[in-house]
Amino acid sequence: MQLGMIGLGRMGGNMVERLLRGKHTCVVHDRSADAVAKSVEKGATGAGTLDEFVSKLKTPRAVWLMVPAGVVDATLADLVPKLAPDDIVIDGGNSYYVDDIRRAKELKTKGLHYLDVGTSGGVFGLDRGYCMMIGGDTDAVRRLDPIFATLAPGFETAPRTEGKTGDPSPAERGYLHCGPAGAGHFVKMVHNGIEYGMMAAYAEGLAVLKNANIGSQKQTHDAETTPLRNPEHYQYTIDVPAVAEVWRRGSVVASWLLDLTAHALSENPELSDFAGRVSDSGEGRWTVQAAVDAGVPAHVLTAALYERFSSRGEAGYADKLLSAMRSEFGGHKEKPAGK
Amino acid sequence: MQLGMIGLGRMGGNMVERLLRGKHTCVVHDRSADAVAKSVEKGATGAGTLDEFVSKLKTPRAVWLMVPAGVVDATLADLVPKLAPDDIVIDGGNSYYVDDIRRAKELKTKGLHYLDVGTSGGVFGLDRGYCMMIGGDTDAVRRLDPIFATLAPGFETAPRTEGKTGDPSPAERGYLHCGPAGAGHFVKMVHNGIEYGMMAAYAEGLAVLKNANIGSQKQTHDAETTPLRNPEHYQYTIDVPAVAEVWRRGSVVASWLLDLTAHALSENPELSDFAGRVSDSGEGRWTVQAAVDAGVPAHVLTAALYERFSSRGEAGYADKLLSAMRSEFGGHKEKPAGK
Amino acid sequence: MQLGMIGLGRMGGNMVERLLRGKHTCVVHDRSADAVAKSVEKGATGAGTLDEFVSKLKTPRAVWLMVPAGVVDATLADLVPKLAPDDIVIDGGNSYYVDDIRRAKELKTKGLHYLDVGTSGGVFGLDRGYCMMIGGDTDAVRRLDPIFATLAPGFETAPRTEGKTGDPSPAERGYLHCGPAGAGHFVKMVHNGIEYGMMAAYAEGLAVLKNANIGSQKQTHDAETTPLRNPEHYQYTIDVPAVAEVWRRGSVVASWLLDLTAHALSENPELSDFAGRVSDSGEGRWTVQAAVDAGVPAHVLTAALYERFSSRGEAGYADKLLSAMRSEFGGHKEKPAGK
Amino acid sequence: MQLGMIGLGRMGGNMVERLLRGKHTCVVHDRSADAVAKSVEKGATGAGTLDEFVSKLKTPRAVWLMVPAGVVDATLADLVPKLAPDDIVIDGGNSYYVDDIRRAKELKTKGLHYLDVGTSGGVFGLDRGYCMMIGGDTDAVRRLDPIFATLAPGFETAPRTEGKTGDPSPAERGYLHCGPAGAGHFVKMVHNGIEYGMMAAYAEGLAVLKNANIGSQKQTHDAETTPLRNPEHYQYTIDVPAVAEVWRRGSVVASWLLDLTAHALSENPELSDFAGRVSDSGEGRWTVQAAVDAGVPAHVLTAALYERFSSRGEAGYADKLLSAMRSEFGGHKEKPAGK
Repeated sequence: MQLGMIGLGRMGGNMVERLLRGKHTCVVHDRSADAVAKSVEKGATGAGTLDEFVSKLKTPRAVWLMVPAGVVDATLADLVPKLAPDDIVIDGGNSYYVDDIRRAKELKTKGLHYLDVGTSGGVFGLDRGYCMMIGGDTDAVRRLDPIFATLAPGFETAPRTEGKTGDPSPAERGYLHCGPAGAGHFVKMVHNGIEYGMMAAYAEGLAVLKNANIGSQKQTHDAETTPLRNPEHYQYTIDVPAVAEVWRRGSVVASWLLDLTAHALSENPELSDFAGRVSDSGEGRWTVQAAVDAGVPAHVLTAALYERFSSRGEAGYADKLLSAMRSEFGGHKEKPAGK
Repeated sequence: MQLGMIGLGRMGGNMVERLLRGKHTCVVHDRSADAVAKSVEKGATGAGTLDEFVSKLKTPRAVWLMVPAGVVDATLADLVPKLAPDDIVIDGGNSYYVDDIRRAKELKTKGLHYLDVGTSGGVFGLDRGYCMMIGGDTDAVRRLDPIFATLAPGFETAPRTEGKTGDPSPAERGYLHCGPAGAGHFVKMVHNGIEYGMMAAYAEGLAVLKNANIGSQKQTHDAETTPLRNPEHYQYTIDVPAVAEVWRRGSVVASWLLDLTAHALSENPELSDFAGRVSDSGEGRWTVQAAVDAGVPAHVLTAALYERFSSRGEAGYADKLLSAMRSEFGGHKEKPAGK
Repeated sequence: MQLGMIGLGRMGGNMVERLLRGKHTCVVHDRSADAVAKSVEKGATGAGTLDEFVSKLKTPRAVWLMVPAGVVDATLADLVPKLAPDDIVIDGGNSYYVDDIRRAKELKTKGLHYLDVGTSGGVFGLDRGYCMMIGGDTDAVRRLDPIFATLAPGFETAPRTEGKTGDPSPAERGYLHCGPAGAGHFVKMVHNGIEYGMMAAYAEGLAVLKNANIGSQKQTHDAETTPLRNPEHYQYTIDVPAVAEVWRRGSVVASWLLDLTAHALSENPELSDFAGRVSDSGEGRWTVQAAVDAGVPAHVLTAALYERFSSRGEAGYADKLLSAMRSEFGGHKEKPAGK
Repeated sequence: MQLGMIGLGRMGGNMVERLLRGKHTCVVHDRSADAVAKSVEKGATGAGTLDEFVSKLKTPRAVWLMVPAGVVDATLADLVPKLAPDDIVIDGGNSYYVDDIRRAKELKTKGLHYLDVGTSGGVFGLDRGYCMMIGGDTDAVRRLDPIFATLAPGFETAPRTEGKTGDPSPAERGYLHCGPAGAGHFVKMVHNGIEYGMMAAYAEGLAVLKNANIGSQKQTHDAETTPLRNPEHYQYTIDVPAVAEVWRRGSVVASWLLDLTAHALSENPELSDFAGRVSDSGEGRWTVQAAVDAGVPAHVLTAALYERFSSRGEAGYADKLLSAMRSEFGGHKEKPAGK
């Protein structure tokens, strides 16, 4: 079927290409003429302006936005007046689900359908397919089924869950209608929250392995530091990249994130390309907010988020306060950097 | 080659079977005659006593212990006097790596080799193979290579990490010599620590999804509870089993643990077979101890461990203290169960 | 000066009494005639209706609301139309500061002043005084200074901070104008967040002491549980109430919360009056939200909040998921209650 | 009575002075002749060598060690051969309680008594007195009662806990016999663990206040960062030193640590003397170990410890791993410092 795509960045461009491979037709628009040209080369129909874009789409239209969350509302403000009743707008980016609820309500007053589609897959999605979590009206979701089916990884990309029989469900093909407006981004939000937790679990664990030789290092002995009691228990020089690799096969912690970790470590065992300032991008924060609202303890997801804050130096004032208190009650001086 | 196996439980029995399938010969012993008989049926040579077991093994022997961590020392006490110099003893269970260091030293005085092999794979290992993390002398590890190669999942069980070329390393086949005595169980220990963290990440996230309908539930309004400010944001009834299924394909959180979770939820969406009393089995605790010794922050791995403690009611006294304090300063009465 | 008080519960009634002791005059109103009568007995002027209440106050009026956060807006809806320009309304309860921002703006359109006053002190405030954190216009704050000065504990209730000289500041007497609308409740919110953290620190630590005899208890030995390696290190039967008492004098952890803890433990060493279902009342949650918004890591404050959730059984679904996963990969059965 | 003190640092020197003020007699020894001279000036009897020190003490002797935990064993090795049966050795430093258990056993074979005394009070102890947690034989504890009574703050330094009557117990005077060997340092260990938690609670909370103006700061808007949704809610410039001061009177979070915090902030509101590299000194780590061994969830105490690790940059490798993973799956580049 025909889909209009606005936003041809890393994600949007690849999605168009995957749809074209799947024999769909795509009308594309982007602020960057280069990006449009690149998609046109792959077989898409380019549109230099929003008007042109809308006019090239057959009604009822399906317009997929793949733009930064911060510009969705501005894009909608331009786009919506040009659309006609029964058109569908899909937000495939990383919007906060609360915005989806509002937007769906607004668009409904104009007879438009709004779908929120949380999309996971990253730069690998072109070939592996995208996992999609969808929120919105059932009818609109159904109309777009051919698009979702093509973008999704497909049934055969994972062994079937034991006990399941019959025709594969959409979930078994990699996309799921999660509920009404916002439900798609809600599920995607939690997905990313879990992602933060898993990433932190690997990072912490591998950091323990990296430091398994701490007993062989010069120990500081002073009133401020307790000596390691059993240095003979920490004499291992672990080949962390090899460990990440070995866990990929047969272990309980095997995962796609581990595959990526093994690759990164194989390319650069010391990770010297990175300073360790870890960004967080909204979903992790919103997951914490949802956990707090729902009264669900989420120690791990929250700690993973806070570790990212700390990696960027955001704990600095609190740390100074701790040093100040120690100085007050014990006359403890801070030790200089380098332990 | 020939291997002796002591302990034919869930793990040991399956490992023998996998070795037999791989054309190795196995001499087996277990406290339970039934367990021995079962292995004999599959082609192993049974031994009713330890003496018989040892006598049936050609020297230099290789004896694999697959017994509970708590009885390894007792088993060694019986076994070691019957062995001869250059024999190898392998502890494939869940020993604390510190015990490995001690045992390796003791056995060395008798000319014996001691290998510690952390083994991951669970009940699926028979068919999927076992991921093995190995500690001990290089020579002994090399001698057992045919055994490890057969028990391991094998190179083809995961796509090769991009950039790797040439003959697959042992790590790429699913086993790794991690270092001297204890290194295998050290890496396995951290592996399980990570496993705890990942499991908690999934559990917390899915619990948030399960509670996404909290806004539609009767809210308590009293001085002790703040009302949910935006109940309209929590009106989703998420099909948690379907979410676990959809994430298996193309998402960043895909993993073997997720496959298992999807299966468990598909069998019993409400998990009514479980009370939620989660055991912890040593490695999670030791990982925390190692992180503390090494001075590596491990918020996530530790929180995951503590959540298991809490699931078994171990926070009870602390909780009572909190209620007591609230009663003291504010005259707050506890609210009865059922919110 | 004259103050009107609406809401004569535990807090409001005591505040009126403290003001009367301080030679202020109070007009009081409450849904409960009994509560009004009780304040009248102490010297207040009672008002059966809101109209009567307003009419008995000299303009410009100062009306203090000491009602549950959930009914502040309803109370304002009734009250505000009866007020006159330049009157001051004070919300002394536990409102979310975001509501204060909105209310101050609304009341300003009517020429009214709105102050938000976070009030700490609990049931002891009558005699100890109340610590007050105040938000709103400087002029209105200044006008109420005599009220604040009387309600506050006063300069002499703590030794002066070394280095401070001259006339004691309001902060040194126990009240502080923290900033514009909402600032008072913002600071009070964080105050309570800290309170959660401190309470949890005591509770966790004392629980460790309570369990210092774990080595003398029957240990379970099975594949699911690692035995305690050094039971001889955990043979202490600590007198927890005595510990709380001894720390009150000269130790670094001395505090008012500890005083209360010592009292609770002295009354009932086993805390058998409590089930350990710990409520949380809004501020703890909002503090986490603020920390997340501000990008400030708040591991401790958040963990303290989540521990309260867990104490009420809110981790149940997540715990079941963990048990389900363990059953999947390892065939682990849950252990029955009672360890 | 007469006490011998070895170690005249910040703690030991002050304790001698407090004992002298209390009309006890002290024989003192230190590696530093200056330190000895200083105590002699206050009225102590100096001893240049250990032999001299021992000979100047009347039998049965009482020798208090106030030396770094790392040199206690070496000091004992020198000292013990010079002592006679029934002498008492007191370790007043920060030893690990497990060492106490061992030492008490060793000294017992020689007829010596060993007491472990956890001592809190810091540099203020000279005037405020020391809170002491004592482990060891009842007889030896009893013999030293006059010393403990003088070093302790005394009954009148805190209001009596309501409901207590009769002669004040030692706990009410500031010292407590906690149990057999090690019990004193065990309780002190947990005391410090709680201290870490409380300090972190204040630090995190005040850091949130410090950042209450985040809405007025330039926000980064890019795909990597979610914009603050309600910048108008974070427009407060909070006077953090004044807040610390106001909480000292009448609030639930009042404590001695808060007094110290208020002082530090009053001296240097921006804490510019500190870099925020926070040391940890053993007890915090051991408390976590005890919590893990006892199966008691200690989220707060552990998070507080890990925050100190992080403050010293110990999370660096883990953080790099997170950045590496993000780069792998999303092509995310790290953002440079300065947000």
